[in-house]
Parts: sequence; C-alpha cells; structure tokens
Amino acid sequence: MKFILSGLLITALSFSLNAQQKGDSLFIKSIYNNALTESPAYENLRTLCKDIGARITGSAEAEMAIYWGKQLLESYDFDTVYLQEITVPHWERGTQEAAWVINEKGTLKKVDVIALGGSVGTNGVLEGEVIGVSGIDELEKIGRAKIEGKIVFVNKPFDQTQISTFKAYGACSNQRWGGAKEASKYGAKAVVIRSLAQSNDDHPHTGSMDYKMENKIPAAALSTNAANTLLDWLKEGKVTLKLEMDCRFYKDEVSYNVIAETYGKDDQVITFGGHLDSWDVGEGAHDDGAGIIHSIEALRILKQLNYRPKHKLRCVLFMNEENGNFGGKAYAKWCSDNKEKHICALESDRGGFQPLGYDVVGTDEQLKFVQSFKPLLEDYRLYNFEKGYGGVDIGPLMNYYPDILQLGLNPVSQRYFDFHHAETDVFENVNKRELELGGASLATMVYLMDKYLIP
Amino acid sequence: MKFILSGLLITALSFSLNAQQKGDSLFIKSIYNNALTESPAYENLRTLCKDIGARITGSAEAEMAIYWGKQLLESYDFDTVYLQEITVPHWERGTQEAAWVINEKGTLKKVDVIALGGSVGTNGVLEGEVIGVSGIDELEKIGRAKIEGKIVFVNKPFDQTQISTFKAYGACSNQRWGGAKEASKYGAKAVVIRSLAQSNDDHPHTGSMDYKMENKIPAAALSTNAANTLLDWLKEGKVTLKLEMDCRFYKDEVSYNVIAETYGKDDQVITFGGHLDSWDVGEGAHDDGAGIIHSIEALRILKQLNYRPKHKLRCVLFMNEENGNFGGKAYAKWCSDNKEKHICALESDRGGFQPLGYDVVGTDEQLKFVQSFKPLLEDYRLYNFEKGYGGVDIGPLMNYYPDILQLGLNPVSQRYFDFHHAETDVFENVNKRELELGGASLATMVYLMDKYLIP
Repeated sequence: MKFILSGLLITALSFSLNAQQKGDSLFIKSIYNNALTESPAYENLRTLCKDIGARITGSAEAEMAIYWGKQLLESYDFDTVYLQEITVPHWERGTQEAAWVINEKGTLKKVDVIALGGSVGTNGVLEGEVIGVSGIDELEKIGRAKIEGKIVFVNKPFDQTQISTFKAYGACSNQRWGGAKEASKYGAKAVVIRSLAQSNDDHPHTGSMDYKMENKIPAAALSTNAANTLLDWLKEGKVTLKLEMDCRFYKDEVSYNVIAETYGKDDQVITFGGHLDSWDVGEGAHDDGAGIIHSIEALRILKQLNYRPKHKLRCVLFMNEENGNFGGKAYAKWCSDNKEKHICALESDRGGFQPLGYDVVGTDEQLKFVQSFKPLLEDYRLYNFEKGYGGVDIGPLMNYYPDILQLGLNPVSQRYFDFHHAETDVFENVNKRELELGGASLATMVYLMDKYLIP
Repeated sequence: MKFILSGLLITALSFSLNAQQKGDSLFIKSIYNNALTESPAYENLRTLCKDIGARITGSAEAEMAIYWGKQLLESYDFDTVYLQEITVPHWERGTQEAAWVINEKGTLKKVDVIALGGSVGTNGVLEGEVIGVSGIDELEKIGRAKIEGKIVFVNKPFDQTQISTFKAYGACSNQRWGGAKEASKYGAKAVVIRSLAQSNDDHPHTGSMDYKMENKIPAAALSTNAANTLLDWLKEGKVTLKLEMDCRFYKDEVSYNVIAETYGKDDQVITFGGHLDSWDVGEGAHDDGAGIIHSIEALRILKQLNYRPKHKLRCVLFMNEENGNFGGKAYAKWCSDNKEKHICALESDRGGFQPLGYDVVGTDEQLKFVQSFKPLLEDYRLYNFEKGYGGVDIGPLMNYYPDILQLGLNPVSQRYFDFHHAETDVFENVNKRELELGGASLATMVYLMDKYLIP
C-alpha cells in the first residue's frame, strides 16, 4: 500500500515473507554481523573518552574532538568529509567548586555540588539561609518577602514509577532549566537544585539552564545524597549554605560540526548524528560519545557492505548540543539556505545501552510506515516504535522541513541517569556489545529509510 | 475462546480494552509501583551478597544463605515457610590455584585460571605439553597417540553474532561440560578450556561438568585473555603448561530448599523460584541472587497488595542448581510423591537485568495463551514471548507433570556472561531499578497465570 503524505510518498510494505523481505533480512543480518565482529566502535569510543575526555564547547578538548572526528571519518574514505563553521559559547567551570551546609547547632557538613552550565561564579564564598521548595512553581506562592536574600533549594526527585527514565527526567527537568530564572525573580541570591538523577548517590549532575535574565544568580546542583541531607536538616530547623564557584563565561569561539557523506542517486538528504561536545565532567561516554560512534558506524558499515544509497547519507557530529544547540540550529539553517531537500533525520543521544526501538516524530502514517518494518527488526530486540522525541540536534530541521520524518534511537534507559552529565559518564560504563548493537540498529534504520522512504 | 489442552483448560482472553483488562492493567501498575518505590529488593540482595557472598553447596555460606532466606521469608508473614531436606555434594576449591605457560624459548607467563566445579586436584604441580583444539569434537580425529600424556586446551569462543548471548553460551558450553570426559578418553592428563565468557578480559569463569568417568583428570578454565595468549603461543611452537590446584570433594552434606507459600482457594500449585546456591567466586549477585530476590519479591508484592490467589503460590529458593541440581530434582519428586497438582512453574536464573519477556515451554496453545497478555505487558518493556527454556531448577517437574506450563524470565543478556560464574558477579554490577523491574515482572506473570490459567 502507499500513503500520500504531505508531499512525501511513502511505500509501506506488506511484510509477508516475500523475496524483498528475505533480501532485507539477509542484509540486516550482515549489518549486525559486521557490527558484532569487525567493528572498531568500542576502540573508537575508548579514544574519544581517554585521549580526549570531557569536551565542552570552546575547550581545547572540543577542538581535539573535532580533529579526531574529521581524521576518523577521513580514514573511512567516504565521498566527502568537511567541517561546518559555527559560533559557540565558551563557559568554564574554573578551579573552585565547593559547598557546605551548617545547621542551627553549628554542625557543618561538606556537600557534593557542581555548577550548572553557564552559571556565574560566587565571587568568593557566598552564604545564605536556605529556603527549600519541592518545585519551582511553589516560589510564586511563597513570595518575595520570604525568598529575598536567601538561597533557594529546589528538590523535586525523579518519579521512580516511570518505566522510561526519560519521562521521569522530563517531569522534573524544569528545576534545572528554570530554577535560577524563577528564584532570581523573587530576589534569591543563589539557587541549588537536586541533581536530575535516578539513584541516591554522591555524584552531582550538571546541565543547561535558561539564563536569559537581568540579575544572574549562581546556580548549582547537589548530589541526590546531599539533597536528601539538606532536606532532612531543613525539617529540623534553619540551615545556612556556603557556596564557592569561580565559573564564568569567556568570549564566543569559532567551532565546527563535522560532516561526512556517502552520495546517493539523488541529492535528497538523510541526516543522522549525535553530538560531539559533552559536559565538562566525566568523559561524555554515554552522552553522547555513544551517539557519535553509532552515527559513524552507520555510515561505515553501509559503506563496508557496499551499499549504494538512493539518497545522500549524511553523518553529522554536531557541536554544542549541551549548552546552546548552536550546531543543530546552524546546520538546519544551512540546509535550508542551500535549498536542500531533507526526507529523514535520525539521532542517537540516549546512551550506549541495548537499543529497544525508535521514537518516531511524524504523522500517524509515518508511524505506521516505520512500524511496518517490525517483523524485520524484532530478532534484533527492536520492539518499540511509538511517537516520541527525535533529538535536540535534529530538532531545528523541523523549522524548515515540517514534513520530515524524525527518529530517535531508544535504548534501555534504566541506568542512563546514573551517568548523565556527571563524573560517572566514563568509558568503563559502556558495554562493548551494547554499543555495537546501537551502531547496527542505526545502520539498519538508515538503510530501511533510504531504501523505502520515497520522496 | 478456550483451548482444551492435555487435561488443562486454558482461557485465552480476547484483549480489547474491556473492564477485565482495565482491572488487570491497574493491578499490574500497582505491582510495578510497589516494586519501584517500596521494595526492599536491592537491600535484600546487598545482604545476600555482602553478608553471605559466594555460597556453593556444602559451604558454611550456603548454610547461612538458607538461614537468611528462611528468616527473610518468615518476616513477610506468608501462610507457611519451611525447609525441604536434600542431600548435596560438597566440593571445595582449596587454597592453591595457579597456572603458567612456557614456550620453546623458555618465556614464562602466569595465566588466570580457575578449577572447574568438581575437578580433582593436581597433587602438586602438574606439567604437560599443550595440545590445542577448537572444539571437543576434534579430539576423535586427532586420536590417542597425539593426545596421550598431554594437556588438552579447548578454545571455542562465543559466536558474537548471536544477539542472545545465551545462544552463544549454549553453542560452546560442551567444552566445559564434556571437555574433561572427552579428553580423558584419549589419555590426556588434564584439560583447560576457554572460559565461557563474552568479553576478552582477565576473569576466568568456573562451572559444572560431566565428570562421570573412570579416570578423572584435572579440569580448569582460562580467562579469555589467557586463552588468546595460549592460542597465539601455540601458533609459534610447543607450549608447556604447569597447573596447580588442590580442590577436592568431601562427603555429601545435608542441605535444604527454602520454601514459602501463600494459600489459594485450591491446592493446585504454581511454583516460582531461583537458586540460592552460587559458585564459590564473586557473590552470586546475578547468578542467581537476582532470581532469588525476584522470587521473594513476587510473593511479597502480591501479599502486600492483598491479592487473594486462586491457587497455591509457592516460592522456592532451590539449593544446588550449580553442581548437581539435587534441589530441583528432589523438589519435583517430592511434589509427585505428595500427589500435588502443578499447573505452572516459573524461574528467574538469567540475571538481574531489565526483563524483556519470558521464554515459554509448552504447546503452541500454551504459547498463544501467554502471548495473549502482551497488550498488558508492553508498557513494562515485556515484548518477547517465544518458545525457549524455562530453567534448570524447574526442569525436573516436566518428568512428573508433562503438561505443565513453564516460563523462564528473559532479561537483556548482553552483559550476563561478563559476570556468570566469575569473581565479577558482585552486587555492584546489579542495577537497583533493573532488579526491581525483574521482581515486578515475575509478580505480574505469577498473577496472570494464577488468575487465568484454569486447571
């Protein structure tokens, strides 16, 4: 059957075991065999993590990551490899980062803390009485009189009953994104939030925030254990928090998306990628070293299997997803300025765990089209194809290509928020086979979209 | 619709969104909410791993595990908790366990080695020339003249292209199970095998073998890295191996299965369990501490939610799965001797990773019956219900109850054989939420079988 769909003509296959399906089944098997036996994926991730490590936009490490990515892509002899210039913010954590809580009895305890991305520093030690809330929506009710001059502590834990931890993350991420802005409105002198994390442990998790405001106040995240301590202490009485951070912004920098392409029979583009930058702690192994490796693997495997694409297959290592998304925004505008035709975009930015399927961003017909491939994919544990979220990097393409089909790789999520934006996001926490399965699953989906998504 | 089936009458539900399904859906949600927010599962596993640890049959630790299991089950106030006496073998590793390889140039290298379960010792240092084979089926072709007096090295690696690592394990497990017996037939003085493991690392993996033979020879496993080294050296010339192990058998011991029950409206039994014993290295965290916790959780959650079962729900912590399965065999015989009627058995013995479904052992109709619940289960990432393997402990029930429906919990398998039977199988390698999801999935499946499997 065929669907006429917003200018796209999609062939959805009736998957009985016909010759076509057998051919696809064999080809997909060869993709997985390649990924599981001949893949440099794990060693490439090791290099990215160990020889480069954390690589926030504007850092020397980010520059090295661009060099590494370009060199690696060039080594695979794709049709073209090039850099796409962008401008990115440059923020650095500095050398001082510490916090202590002191209760009414004078008991002092050091707590694990990390500046949120983009935060101003404290200009020495900042001290204030803590006022605790369980969500930023409480601030309005409490009012300026009780908040002014204090340090707001927002403690909204993950809802553990969500099976998808991304749903739990989404439901409380506004404490990080909006915490400083909201607390500042009511005269707070700083904000500390509960880390957006799954487990109770000692690792604070950084991340981006909406910092477009007049009176920028220092913003930091406490580890979940530290947040629990502070919560307990606040039940007993007044708590003072001392915070020192010397993070600050520098002038914007020139940086690059790194792009590789395999040409097709036409010039219509299928984009797939992850982000090359990471936060400045850990090694950016799951976030998003894994997605970078998946994306490179997808292009490498299809080339090595001598697949001749219909369309232009473009692997993009996006820069600056974490703090501004200037890579994703610049890429989408560049595509549009160049009058490119885009039919599909895929992203891997949820870690290097065993893939379970793809989130689909598109119409009901596009969803059905993707679901029509399930019989080919279930042998590889790809079961789940429902509407959801594509990815931050490919998101801006929607502004220029509203009909584009977007797919976000969706792996097992239970452990992701133990590592996300924290010092624990290191190579050792990525499993070789799970990483390889991710690369194979992305190669498979790029193959199916290239072959069957008729523009 | 109803299936008449070998004496069992099974109701398979037509799952449109009817009232019944809504009720089930709400109850299953309450199971998962309990497991993810109120569960002692993770702390119970911590105690089993850290206060007891490795617990091979016949050891003081196995005795402590029985004590721990009985105390814990009694604390939940089930209808009955009791021990079931069995006789088990008692084998101990001893204090000496080491191996070295020496090549023709005289270069010596220590290699990571572990005695296979039940092996005789070497009576001092045993030394011999190594003859390498890539599978035990090669021995017959090579013949006695070339094997006699040598140490056979069997090196059959996992097939990495298998998506299910259990299939890869199954395909090469006969090098461990049959290696000593086959090599002994041709006069070998010892056998060393490549560990049945997924990754290249330094951890050797022990396990059981078929040791029913006249001339018992020492048998050990090399780590995969050590096996790779030995393989490389053999390509260059003659290699001598020196092996010392002082493991040995002691007299049989009395031990116990630990059993808890919640009574139903009838006396027909649904058994679910894992095994309380482990190998004598690591902490038996995934194998099978996780299965023990899942099984206890299934009974605990259903009781805490005030579920009134139709049938007798019996949680069995089996003893001696690893080296003899005397717990499973004795249990099945005891059920039959007592003329019990058994309708279903479930086992969890594939680790504490995120569950993806259940292997089904039964007829096509029984498979369809289980699959009819998929619409209720996919929200919890339980996608996969195909014919497969139930479990070692519940296996002997088939001898007395050929029509029994058996279900084996099937989690993500990619990392399991990094830990299985090795020193790496420790509490820290089990994720809290993944463990909790396992308990919830078992509680859910016990609930559905109890409610809808009409005897």
